[in-house]
Amino acid sequence: MKAIIITVGDEILIGQVIDTNSAWIGNVFNEKGIDIVEIVSVQDKLEAIESAIQQAMNKADLVVMTGGLGPTKDDITKVAIANYFGVEMVYSEETFERIKIIFEKFGRTVGESHKAQCFMPANAILLKNKMGTAPGMLIQHENKMLVSLPGVPYEMKSIITDELLPYLQKNHPSSSHIFHKTIMTSGEGETIIADIIEPLLENMPNYIKLAYLPSLGHVRVRFTGKHQDREILEKEVSHYGEIAMKALGKIVYGVDDISLEQSLQDLCSNLDLKLTTAESCTGGFISHKITSIPGSSSHFIGGIVSYSNDLKKNILNVNEETLIKHGAVSEQTVLEMLHGILAITKANVGIAISGIAGPDGGSEEKPVGTIWIAYGNDSNQVAVKINSTKDRLKNIEYASHVALNKLRLFILENYI
Amino acid sequence: MKAIIITVGDEILIGQVIDTNSAWIGNVFNEKGIDIVEIVSVQDKLEAIESAIQQAMNKADLVVMTGGLGPTKDDITKVAIANYFGVEMVYSEETFERIKIIFEKFGRTVGESHKAQCFMPANAILLKNKMGTAPGMLIQHENKMLVSLPGVPYEMKSIITDELLPYLQKNHPSSSHIFHKTIMTSGEGETIIADIIEPLLENMPNYIKLAYLPSLGHVRVRFTGKHQDREILEKEVSHYGEIAMKALGKIVYGVDDISLEQSLQDLCSNLDLKLTTAESCTGGFISHKITSIPGSSSHFIGGIVSYSNDLKKNILNVNEETLIKHGAVSEQTVLEMLHGILAITKANVGIAISGIAGPDGGSEEKPVGTIWIAYGNDSNQVAVKINSTKDRLKNIEYASHVALNKLRLFILENYI
Repeated sequence: MKAIIITVGDEILIGQVIDTNSAWIGNVFNEKGIDIVEIVSVQDKLEAIESAIQQAMNKADLVVMTGGLGPTKDDITKVAIANYFGVEMVYSEETFERIKIIFEKFGRTVGESHKAQCFMPANAILLKNKMGTAPGMLIQHENKMLVSLPGVPYEMKSIITDELLPYLQKNHPSSSHIFHKTIMTSGEGETIIADIIEPLLENMPNYIKLAYLPSLGHVRVRFTGKHQDREILEKEVSHYGEIAMKALGKIVYGVDDISLEQSLQDLCSNLDLKLTTAESCTGGFISHKITSIPGSSSHFIGGIVSYSNDLKKNILNVNEETLIKHGAVSEQTVLEMLHGILAITKANVGIAISGIAGPDGGSEEKPVGTIWIAYGNDSNQVAVKINSTKDRLKNIEYASHVALNKLRLFILENYI
Repeated sequence: MKAIIITVGDEILIGQVIDTNSAWIGNVFNEKGIDIVEIVSVQDKLEAIESAIQQAMNKADLVVMTGGLGPTKDDITKVAIANYFGVEMVYSEETFERIKIIFEKFGRTVGESHKAQCFMPANAILLKNKMGTAPGMLIQHENKMLVSLPGVPYEMKSIITDELLPYLQKNHPSSSHIFHKTIMTSGEGETIIADIIEPLLENMPNYIKLAYLPSLGHVRVRFTGKHQDREILEKEVSHYGEIAMKALGKIVYGVDDISLEQSLQDLCSNLDLKLTTAESCTGGFISHKITSIPGSSSHFIGGIVSYSNDLKKNILNVNEETLIKHGAVSEQTVLEMLHGILAITKANVGIAISGIAGPDGGSEEKPVGTIWIAYGNDSNQVAVKINSTKDRLKNIEYASHVALNKLRLFILENYI
């Protein structure tokens, strides 16, 4: 079954609202084996909506619309639907009664404007909305289906989960399954990853597809398969996923959209390792990433954001001579920072980082983007230098990612 | 000028990635007076991309594509573009040289597969990508324009800002001007803001529109005018903007999309105040926000992420009795944390924060979302409690914002 999502609303087109509804629907449909072939966002204009419905109904078996069903005057989706099918709008007493009950519950009375909300295209089946006043609508037409839902996320989700999916299950049982396996990697670019794994995947059946999804500091490698037999599908996708994981080795930090921070937390928790950080140029971003994971207090003791040289000296005991001779952005300084933070916090492992995030502060010898990272434990400390970009936020994010990944690799090599 | 955005990539359609690129582009184009009439997300398939280009070029003056330009085999956007225009793919030595330079900087060698990245539709003008290897492309065709950009957000943003917008400005100057004035507020909701300013704006000409853009902890109040006469436009928009700013008073922290952190930095720099932080539940996010602003080292000394009670005691000198009697999430603890961090760092002003970010760790007395914030200087400290949500990341972000805004108001009241 091929599906298209149409979202209606100027607020999406002018970037005032990010369309998270479509991603949610995409995810749920994908798991049920429904292929979303297109997502379209259109303006709050009758012609635009009608034209989008027309095109989508030509291409797909199922069209799901969200937005444009509320009580205000710009809600013209229903009219566009009625026009497309060439049917009248009819008044739904059932909907009005439901609105009245909801309003009475909140001690309000129903106004005349709510009656407009109760007109529906004559061929629509109503889908109950437990979370709000506007019902969803489903129209079955020549083996195709159009569904229109409110744009409020929790209302849309509730109607899809409780009404639409059971309806589809009953009336259009799926013949093929979809199965994904995503491998999370850090440390190599997509080209090198492709060079490593693609020669090993020559016999992969063509119902399994491979995609590389790069972002700052990491690449997700995704296998997606589609097959009538769920068992064969899972077995084959897992088989080729395993081959890739083995070949990629330690650059793999997890599967299925786990974050690097979560992976590091799992590793530390399993090995009962306590972690600390001493950050200069990343300014707290590394500890923010670590603490954004629920349960991080089990392994993260805390750390210092030693932004000024005074804090580096007074709290972390970095030598004044080191700062004068080598500068705050140097191998010697980050190693002393690491030594200091491990001593104060008594953590098992730690990260220290100092660099020139930019946009100013660079020199010929140490241009913007020069960042020193130290990682290790009491008995073994390593420092590496990275050369990042001229973009401050990118430098902060990239250096933090590299530091966390270096520590992950250090733990793998020294504790396992 | 009418524009359509096409985003290419199965990862959007299956809901693995939320399309934030389109919202960013929508926002930027809207400010420049370019109307986005549609956003379309399509599969990584040649026919799908070609058909989307065809339809978009029929409807719009400007088509912007993102995604599908990386070095691996699923990158077929360029081929679809060449097919649509009926042109050959030609090899760009310039692009290859740029890739080589970037790779050499990171101590890596360029592989054969990078050469594929260097083929471009013959009619394309290259748009420089300062942030990555894949350049953007611009094709001018019969008064219409097609632009193709990498899907990695910071690369896409950099090319639009530094290359595309200046190109449009030069080659397609708009006949009517658009002028915005955005007032940044923190501390009141949009309903109260509307009640304060709307009675004062009754005579505002109807070519100026007012929008409230709420997000976590703040509301942007945006005046947007459109007029042929740039001078009249700027004068009138500024006039009504000033009226609103005066009426809103101290909840205004700046204009024109300045961040709260930037506003606080400006304030501290002007008054020569040094700032420090002691963070527990926000885990470094406050110092990250502060240090994400270029030049933050001028006022930010640094801080402690005292995630464990041990760090609260050993570094910040919080009394063990306080922690036992009142708990880590209490008025007494945050006041002692503030006292401690001010003493260690000798900063003029500071923030201390401790709370239950969730999702676990709450109790009946202190449910998830209970957060204590202390702020002040050596002679005057204030503590406030906020009750946030059950969502960890939202709590971290909201509490950080409130803390920074409370400190801003404290400085206004005590130093000006």
